[in-house]
Amino acid sequence: MNSKRVLITGSSGFLGKNISQFLKDQGYQAKNFDLADGLDLLNENHLKKSLASVDYVCHLAAVGDVYLAAKSPKLAACVGVGGTANLIQVANNLKNIKKIIYASTWEVYGHPNYQPIDEKHSCNPDHPYSISKYAGELMFRSNLNHVPWVILRLGSAYGSNMRTNAVIPLFINKAKAGEVITIAGDGLQTRQFTHARDIARGFQLALESKIAGEVFNIVSKESQTIKEIAEMVKSKIPVRIKYTAKRQGDVVPAMVSSEKARRLLGWMEKVSFKDGFMELFGFPGN
Amino acid sequence: MNSKRVLITGSSGFLGKNISQFLKDQGYQAKNFDLADGLDLLNENHLKKSLASVDYVCHLAAVGDVYLAAKSPKLAACVGVGGTANLIQVANNLKNIKKIIYASTWEVYGHPNYQPIDEKHSCNPDHPYSISKYAGELMFRSNLNHVPWVILRLGSAYGSNMRTNAVIPLFINKAKAGEVITIAGDGLQTRQFTHARDIARGFQLALESKIAGEVFNIVSKESQTIKEIAEMVKSKIPVRIKYTAKRQGDVVPAMVSSEKARRLLGWMEKVSFKDGFMELFGFPGN
Repeated sequence: MNSKRVLITGSSGFLGKNISQFLKDQGYQAKNFDLADGLDLLNENHLKKSLASVDYVCHLAAVGDVYLAAKSPKLAACVGVGGTANLIQVANNLKNIKKIIYASTWEVYGHPNYQPIDEKHSCNPDHPYSISKYAGELMFRSNLNHVPWVILRLGSAYGSNMRTNAVIPLFINKAKAGEVITIAGDGLQTRQFTHARDIARGFQLALESKIAGEVFNIVSKESQTIKEIAEMVKSKIPVRIKYTAKRQGDVVPAMVSSEKARRLLGWMEKVSFKDGFMELFGFPGN
Repeated sequence: MNSKRVLITGSSGFLGKNISQFLKDQGYQAKNFDLADGLDLLNENHLKKSLASVDYVCHLAAVGDVYLAAKSPKLAACVGVGGTANLIQVANNLKNIKKIIYASTWEVYGHPNYQPIDEKHSCNPDHPYSISKYAGELMFRSNLNHVPWVILRLGSAYGSNMRTNAVIPLFINKAKAGEVITIAGDGLQTRQFTHARDIARGFQLALESKIAGEVFNIVSKESQTIKEIAEMVKSKIPVRIKYTAKRQGDVVPAMVSSEKARRLLGWMEKVSFKDGFMELFGFPGN
């Protein structure tokens, strides 16, 4: 089991929790690293101590809430870019780390030049969240890094433990509370919601693969409009849906292909949006 | 004079000092903003107070020493990316700032796909210094920023007040001390050394131009090899030159074109390398 010791940074976050649990279920020794446990990515000593006793790292720690990142871009950059650079530097000095899997996002692509977007598409991130994620990617690719890495550009993640200000739980909770669902814009912006368990499997496959130094999209094929999600909620609990002005800085939707992950990692989503949504809603999947 | 009040961030650094002096000579009221004056880019209140009384910003504050950035990539990222994001956010909230000129670097291009490199070339920065500079650029281009900006990608700057660990003063000081000049690699790597006064003029032109939302290379045409510089020093003071192993992470040389700056800003270098070198050496230019 020695080769299955993995550190999860951001282990108290939504995806961190899911990945930690998933890897434990797969027989990994998953160690936590999170501010919630008093462990700071910007503190070299915390990193040294935690990295010394593992072989792999799943690096998720970041200001994962895009609204918070917009509100405090300084924090997003210091944690996301500074913290990632710090992790890479400490891992390089220690020399026991076999691979780091970095949680990036489909949002690094920015405005699409062609669709579906593959990993060769240029990156033009346009929000403090995605800019910080992308700069973190570049730190892995830097000439100064010698620790093997895989970058996963994740779809819009959903699943248990997700932030309550994310669109799906927000809509569900509005309906449950008898309040109005508010949609910014026409609600026709699409997202490829990707279930946290599918994402966690992407991390496992990336860890166990011999491949390093590659970038993979980990994004479910299906896409939903925000309006469709509101309607799905409404079909379960009657609720009023209101449309307001488009929100500043909202991400342009784009279709992303995960063909490379399928081909080289054997990754494909297993959770359909309908099942994942029902599970989140509190109903068992059909 | 009201419209000529400019804040220089990083005003105690090599380029900051030069730009501050140059703009003062051109009739600007140049205000300083530097850690050396107790003013921190990561502190919103410091920024608010300083930005409130100016119209323009020349944003140079960063970990400008590439060796320090390699040693402390966390610091480079927090100051460079976090600090830049902070500056942009505070400027957006204040609404009095007419334009910010951002000091970026030719090094953001990374490995050249074609040469000479123009501003349309893709950016693949591969060092914590250039990654941080590039992420700062992206923060300016973010959807959340509404303050007009111009990004200047500067050539390898030289001139008075430059850091003593930069190649030219390092070689001069070795020769003056009767020590050996050490060159990492074969010394055939080229640099387009661009004089600080020429760079300062680039900032002035960018400030005064009606153009915003554009990126310009500000790089002198001439290029020198490191070996040539050592030989130029040797021709003034006899000194031994020793070649050692190539240094890890050193930037791949590339020819950069400033044709766009010439066309749209009317910028061209005025200081020949020979004159700038002689001036730095302590001899008057010929």
